Parts: sequence; structure tokens; C-alpha cells
Amino acid sequence: MDSRLEEIISRVKDLDGHAMELARQRQGTLAKPPGSLGKLEDISVQLAGITGKVNNRVDQRRVIVMAADNGVYEEGVSSSPQSVTLAQTINLTRGLTGCAVIARHFGSQLQVVDVGVNARVECPDVIDRKIAYGTKNLAKEPAMTRDQAVQAVLVGVEMASAAAADGIRIVGVGEMGICNTTTSSAVLAALTGLSALQVTGRGGGITDSAFDKKKNVIDAALALHRPDKNDPIDVLSKVGGFDIAAMCGVFLGCAAERIPVVVDGFISVVAALCAVRLCPLVRNYLIMSHESYEVGYVVAAKQLGLDALFNLGMRLGEGSGCPIAFEIVSAACTVMNEMATFEQAEINDDYLEEIRGKDCFTV
Amino acid sequence: MDSRLEEIISRVKDLDGHAMELARQRQGTLAKPPGSLGKLEDISVQLAGITGKVNNRVDQRRVIVMAADNGVYEEGVSSSPQSVTLAQTINLTRGLTGCAVIARHFGSQLQVVDVGVNARVECPDVIDRKIAYGTKNLAKEPAMTRDQAVQAVLVGVEMASAAAADGIRIVGVGEMGICNTTTSSAVLAALTGLSALQVTGRGGGITDSAFDKKKNVIDAALALHRPDKNDPIDVLSKVGGFDIAAMCGVFLGCAAERIPVVVDGFISVVAALCAVRLCPLVRNYLIMSHESYEVGYVVAAKQLGLDALFNLGMRLGEGSGCPIAFEIVSAACTVMNEMATFEQAEINDDYLEEIRGKDCFTV
Repeated sequence: MDSRLEEIISRVKDLDGHAMELARQRQGTLAKPPGSLGKLEDISVQLAGITGKVNNRVDQRRVIVMAADNGVYEEGVSSSPQSVTLAQTINLTRGLTGCAVIARHFGSQLQVVDVGVNARVECPDVIDRKIAYGTKNLAKEPAMTRDQAVQAVLVGVEMASAAAADGIRIVGVGEMGICNTTTSSAVLAALTGLSALQVTGRGGGITDSAFDKKKNVIDAALALHRPDKNDPIDVLSKVGGFDIAAMCGVFLGCAAERIPVVVDGFISVVAALCAVRLCPLVRNYLIMSHESYEVGYVVAAKQLGLDALFNLGMRLGEGSGCPIAFEIVSAACTVMNEMATFEQAEINDDYLEEIRGKDCFTV
Repeated sequence: MDSRLEEIISRVKDLDGHAMELARQRQGTLAKPPGSLGKLEDISVQLAGITGKVNNRVDQRRVIVMAADNGVYEEGVSSSPQSVTLAQTINLTRGLTGCAVIARHFGSQLQVVDVGVNARVECPDVIDRKIAYGTKNLAKEPAMTRDQAVQAVLVGVEMASAAAADGIRIVGVGEMGICNTTTSSAVLAALTGLSALQVTGRGGGITDSAFDKKKNVIDAALALHRPDKNDPIDVLSKVGGFDIAAMCGVFLGCAAERIPVVVDGFISVVAALCAVRLCPLVRNYLIMSHESYEVGYVVAAKQLGLDALFNLGMRLGEGSGCPIAFEIVSAACTVMNEMATFEQAEINDDYLEEIRGKDCFTV
């Protein structure tokens, strides 16, 4: 293991069990049937474990989008031209894409990082951390070197640290990169030992023949490169992408910085699984936003043992579900911070006696 | 059928198919894979059908909470004392309950209507439309008269009209009433011909023996009163509650006023089913928020042919999921209003040529 990664992993600590216990106690005093706010309660307890405080706010929010191209594009596994990666990377910063408009609507910051777009990105609003002009074609050779994979992960870690320095309270992780459902399925198959058939969907929407080709390319690449399932960096370097590796780094970095981080959709959940395989404690810092349309999502989510918060049938990517998840997390905070206790709600025996004393009841 | 109800039903019209077609066309021009924003796209098309406009906003939002008590309380089918209805009805207006804090957090108005709380509600912020001090005990006699059921429905219609007059763009429907999962299950069983076993859950959380009692009470009441499944008013009057009937009226009234209306949880979905049975066109105006924990929810949702937007494991009631659903609907509006078209995103052949001409690509 690279020493820089080991240093990050060593900084990830367990949740604060005492704060979680206090949060659970407080939830128990709020005027509602126990557990009746479901995941809103769970999230409030998780946040307490992450921050060490019972009362939290997630006012400062940021979606980090990792953009990169994939050499496997030349195999014809995508419905979109590769140039869409460049166009939408820039459009994200211009506030024009799905994720950008949803993020702006909900008051979330949006940070776009070029980790490997296959073009010069002449746009000052895109953060330049380009590792290469796209990966190599994994059908023929490893997508990247091991060092490049580590470098990409460290870009993500850097962005998580920057978020912490900027006072960000919650991070979401998105991506932009044509063919990245192919690389995600390949990484997931490698990590789980499943076949392409079991973890591959149609991504942005491809024809039957392109779909067959996609699965064949993945199975062939796994047979060719034989990535070590116990070494996520090996897997990422052989059949992954710069975007997935950098996203993995954001998850790792957020856990190290004790920032809750939202997993949004298929590519994001595969990157999160890589991070958890590198460091199991990362799991405790994850919040799953929408359930993806992609078949592999369910596989990866099950590996993580985490459920999605909502299913809106979304498959746009970009981290477009993150701002919606932030709203749900903010609702969880508000319940914890502002809801009345049974005592404040005057739902107690004295109050009932008082009401009965007034003879209000006709029963 | 009561003539006042017939008048309301006659005012409910079909969606505007032309506006929906224009909305679908616009969605098709937005820079994303077709259908990739899933339910956000569906909602934007539905809103166009409701308002007749492609571009919509839901800035003015209101949750309407119907509060009432149920005579079946004396059978011991609830875990909470009946006085909780009064306390929480008042606490809703004081901003202390789960729904109240979530509504305030998301900038939604909250309107609380007493349609049958079993106490004098000495609180000026609660709208007084009390029909009686709770219903009769449906285990022994019909819960209310037919005229009372119509009266309760008309209270809901009145509140929908008031919302329209106030410029409200979206309404959510909640409730507060101890024992109203019992009445909801009874109404659902009556409307579907299913047994209590198939439609009854544990509500706010009851013991095994109370749960058995709850199911027995429902089956016995259905056998005693034999409500006519083809006559929702008969069903509501015999085994329903003032809250469910009034909520049914809000759904009817919102459809008549062409306002989208959010169905939130089990009691709400049963009330919506009553409204749709009275007037099938009402279905087109409904948006389902969270999937309830209650077993009957799935049954009622299937009857309506509608899916929930999210599942947060919530079972608080009060309409507590409505403000979250409003946020999702607002995201759907924003995508339609602000996202770039393929042309604006410069994802077209000319642009690709231009990029290639710049020799940016290394492939």
C-alpha cells in the first residue's frame, strides 16, 4: 500500500459512540411514537457520531464532481460521443446541467474537478487536476498505472480536505465521464467476483448490441488483467477510471475529516465500495441518496449494507441526487434541533389530568 | 349522491393533454439521456397537465392537517391516550410537532383544522370546523351519519378552495387523530373487500394483543355495518373518521381547483382512494410522497396505481412527509425551467466538429 494512502486511512476513526447514545436518548424524548421518523432519526444519530455533537446543521453543502474520460470508449460501449464529457464538464460550471440547476436551486455549492478529461479544458471554473487525457482502453491494456490510481485517489482526498477547510458540513460525490458505467461495472465485478451479466446495466441508454458488447468487454478485461479483488487500487488501475478513483478519495477524505458524505447513484456507490474496501470505517460516514436504475447499484449497496433514501428513477449521474439528499439530511437535523419533547408538548400525565379537570372531554 | 358533492365532482376535469405534450417535448430537448431524470420528468409533465403551463413553480405551499377523534378509541386499539389528539393539534400550530418543524424548515404553510377533536380546542390558530366531539364507536354503531360524512368532505373542499384563493401552488394532506390507522384500515378493507388481516398494521406501535383486537374490531365492524364498497360516503360514514372524510374532500377540492396535491402516508392514501372512487379523475392530481410503514399503504397505492417518491421509514403521520415531497416537486420544476437544452449545452454536431477542429482530443 502506498504510504500516502496509509496515512489517510490511519486518520479515519470510528464514530463517537457517546454522542450517538446522547442523540438516541434525545430522539426518545421527542413527542412522537418511538422510531416514527425512521431514517430521519437514523441520520440524526449518525451525524452525532460523525461530528461528536447531538445538534447539527448542514447549511454549508458541496457537491464534488469528478470528470474524466475512459479509453474503453473506442470499443463502442456508449450511446454518447466522448466529447459530451468535455461539454458537460464545462456546462456544470455554467449552471446548465441537471445537477447544476438542482444544486443551485437548493443552495448547494458545486465543485467540478478535471481528473482526466480527454481534451484541454479551457475553463477557469474547472479545477485542473488532470492526470492524463483519459485512461487507456481497458479492453487492451490496464486503464492506468498503479501510481496514477493512487494519484487520482489523492486528488479526492485533497478535495475533501479543502471542503473541511472551507467549513463544508456535508459533501456529495458525483461524476461526469462517458463510459463510466462500463468501468464501474468492471470494478464492481472485480471487487465481488460476479460476472458482468450480474452487475451491468444499460447506462445512459444503449442498444441491445452495444449492451452485449459492454458485458463482453468487461468479462474479457477481467480475464485479461486478473485484478486482485483484495486490492482496490489494483482493481481501479486495471479496469477503473480516474473519476471513480478520485471519488473513492473523496469518500476516504471525508471520513478522515469527519464530514458526512453522500453516495449518489451507481458510479458513486462503486467508488464508495472501493473506499470501504480500503478502510471499512468509511462506511459509517456514508449517506445513500437515490437508488439507481442500474442493476449493479443493488449489488454494491448490499455489499455496503446501506439503503437508499429515495428512488426517483434517476439515472443522470453528475451527483444530481445529492442536493435532494442534503435537503433530507437537513430535515433530520431540524427535527433533532427543533421538535418538542414530550414534556414541552405537554403530553404527560399532569397535562392529561389538567385537560380532564377542565371537563373538555365528552367520552 | 349529495348534490353538493355532485357539483364538486362535476368541476373536476381531465389534465391538459396539449400542455403535457409540450412539456414532454421540452423534456426531450434538455441535455440529458431521455428519461434520465425519472420521476422529476414525470412530475414536470403532470404539473403541466394540471396547470396548463409548461413552466411551473411551487413557491406557495400548504400542508392541511385534519384533526379528529375516533369513538373506536374505547375499544383499546391505540397505544396513545386520546388526549394526544388535542395536545398535538395545538402543538402543530405552535410549531412543535414533527410535521410543524419540517414544514417551517422548508418554508411551507401549515393549516390545522378541527373537524372532530373530542375536546374544546381553545386555540385561535386551529380552524374550527368541528362536526362532533369525535365519531361514535364503529364497533357498536356507525361512526357518523351520512350527512356528517358529506359535511366533513365539504370542509376539505372548502379548504382546497381557500388554498386556491390564497394562491397556493401545491397542497399536502395530513392528519392528527388517535385511532385513525384503525379507521383507515377499516375503510380500505371496505373499499377493497379485503380482510382486516390484509390491510392492518400496528399504527403508532401497539402490543400483540392490541393488534389482534384492532383486526378483530375492524372485521366485526365490517360484518355489522356492511358498508357498500361502491359508495365511499357510505363507507366513510359507517367505519371512517371525520379526518379521513375531510382529507378526501381536500383531494377532491384540489382536483377541482387544478392544484397538485400530495398524498402522505397511510391515512392520506386511504382518503385519496375514497376521493378517486368518488371521482376517478382525481387520481391525475395526486403526488405520492413517502411510502408508509403500514401494510395497507401498498394495497391502497396499488389501487391508485401510483408509487411513492421516497421511503424514509416514516410513520409519524401529520403530513410530515409533505414538505419533503414539495422540495422534490420544486426540483422537478427547476429542471424544467432552468436546465439547458442540447442546443444551449452545445452538444450537437457543429460543436463536436468545432472541438475536433481545435484538436483538443488525443484519441
